[in-house]
Amino acid sequence: MVRIIPKEVKFFEMFAEMAANLTDGARVFSEYLKDCNGTDPVQVRNQVKDIEHRGDEMTHAILKKLNQTFITPFDREDIHRLASSIDDVLDFVNAAADRMMLYKIYNPPAAAAELAALVVRQSEEIAHAVKLLERNPDHVMQHCVEINRLEDEADRVARGAIAHLFEHEKDPITLIKFKELYEVLELATDKAEDAANVLEAVVLKSA
Amino acid sequence: MVRIIPKEVKFFEMFAEMAANLTDGARVFSEYLKDCNGTDPVQVRNQVKDIEHRGDEMTHAILKKLNQTFITPFDREDIHRLASSIDDVLDFVNAAADRMMLYKIYNPPAAAAELAALVVRQSEEIAHAVKLLERNPDHVMQHCVEINRLEDEADRVARGAIAHLFEHEKDPITLIKFKELYEVLELATDKAEDAANVLEAVVLKSA
Amino acid sequence: MVRIIPKEVKFFEMFAEMAANLTDGARVFSEYLKDCNGTDPVQVRNQVKDIEHRGDEMTHAILKKLNQTFITPFDREDIHRLASSIDDVLDFVNAAADRMMLYKIYNPPAAAAELAALVVRQSEEIAHAVKLLERNPDHVMQHCVEINRLEDEADRVARGAIAHLFEHEKDPITLIKFKELYEVLELATDKAEDAANVLEAVVLKSA
Repeated sequence: MVRIIPKEVKFFEMFAEMAANLTDGARVFSEYLKDCNGTDPVQVRNQVKDIEHRGDEMTHAILKKLNQTFITPFDREDIHRLASSIDDVLDFVNAAADRMMLYKIYNPPAAAAELAALVVRQSEEIAHAVKLLERNPDHVMQHCVEINRLEDEADRVARGAIAHLFEHEKDPITLIKFKELYEVLELATDKAEDAANVLEAVVLKSA
Repeated sequence: MVRIIPKEVKFFEMFAEMAANLTDGARVFSEYLKDCNGTDPVQVRNQVKDIEHRGDEMTHAILKKLNQTFITPFDREDIHRLASSIDDVLDFVNAAADRMMLYKIYNPPAAAAELAALVVRQSEEIAHAVKLLERNPDHVMQHCVEINRLEDEADRVARGAIAHLFEHEKDPITLIKFKELYEVLELATDKAEDAANVLEAVVLKSA
Repeated sequence: MVRIIPKEVKFFEMFAEMAANLTDGARVFSEYLKDCNGTDPVQVRNQVKDIEHRGDEMTHAILKKLNQTFITPFDREDIHRLASSIDDVLDFVNAAADRMMLYKIYNPPAAAAELAALVVRQSEEIAHAVKLLERNPDHVMQHCVEINRLEDEADRVARGAIAHLFEHEKDPITLIKFKELYEVLELATDKAEDAANVLEAVVLKSA
């Protein structure tokens, strides 16, 4: 296959970078949650914030390139949606780290660590899928299926944790804090599912 | 009029199925709320969950067909939006049933039943409008107007119920539970309005 | 330049009206917050509600015109997004005024007034940018940059106010009320950023 529009290849590289950056952010946060033992979350929050800021710049660069490019490697609308949904996953990881700092959560509940670990696995799947998109679109689908499965698992974990909270947490303000932490992390996994849905659409259209 | 692209007719049938399924889900939940007398919500929640799961499959089938079809009976973007918004209504009905179970709400307040009844009426209007879309687009609009009117009514009911809660409910955790139940149901009616807006756009474009 | 499609000019006028109406709504609310001294918020809420209602009609008129127009002055999708995001900003201003009434907030915290003032400044920037869009697209970008900067500032203000609330507010129900007021106002500034992103995309595409 001769590439007659080599400039467009760049989009795939940009998406690979975005997915790698998302995976970095999710990992930093997940590692912290696994083993924080009462450490102040301010440092991890700053690290995640920096990664999220880089992610914003990458998203902005893709959308700018999109607006200045006439021929795109796949549908304009799908490029827009894919960039936005990957950006959203990292935004919610950042929001979770931010809540930890704002709400002074030093000993996050185990379910938060479980949810963050699921976001890491989804991010890795997104990174795999994005890498395959250009040359092996037939292999993208299995990663989309796995991302959806991980979202189902996250949903189950978050719902269990919230039910537990309403049964056992007597302090309403603590309940508000933890409930929001779970919800924000669950939203990150929803956005990863959105990314998977776009990837699936791109593959189906090109079949 | 000779149908030279009969394959596309399928989209209208698929939307009719989606709308009928949504109406089923909304009705099951609404009937339960009208007359539950302290029954455990787990059973109704499982019924709604099954219907919502079928709805997910229908949405997925429409989007898959969309991605594999070159000529569509109306704008691709509108097919996407219509399927997504009908799916969203049922998602929020399911979320409401889910909250009842998670928060162990055995005696739901009257306003929740009122809101669920409004979602049923909106679903019926969506089902009517979708049926008319192919052969009688001129008659779609009156159903869209009614869906919007029902959304206004739901907004009024939800706001009144939330104001009442803040005035009379002294237990913050109960307040959090009921407020979220009202909000989730009100969101279902917002999504029905989104569906009506897409239907209106489709009719206007074809005029 | 000879306008051969004069009907389309109307879109720019309609957006200018929408932005002026948004600025009105944001100002009325902001002025009230600056100097309310325990006045019942019902009156300001009714004023904002009326303005928001006019905004709904303007949005509806633009979308209707869009659906009936074949040649548009810029991408259909961007017209849709721009109208929706300007509409959303005003919806959240209205939601904030509404919460004040529903939650009987007679003495709103200073941070709410700060946030509302930032929405006013964003609305003015949107109005400027929209006015320049037709004849001076090169000057639109600086207003988009300023809107984004104001969103960052609002984010900082809201986060500080929420952290303060969790540290000092002991009554969970008051905490719920004020937290939601801040969040709704912060969402208004997010939607203004969405509008800026669409404006930027329109300019880039036309370059």
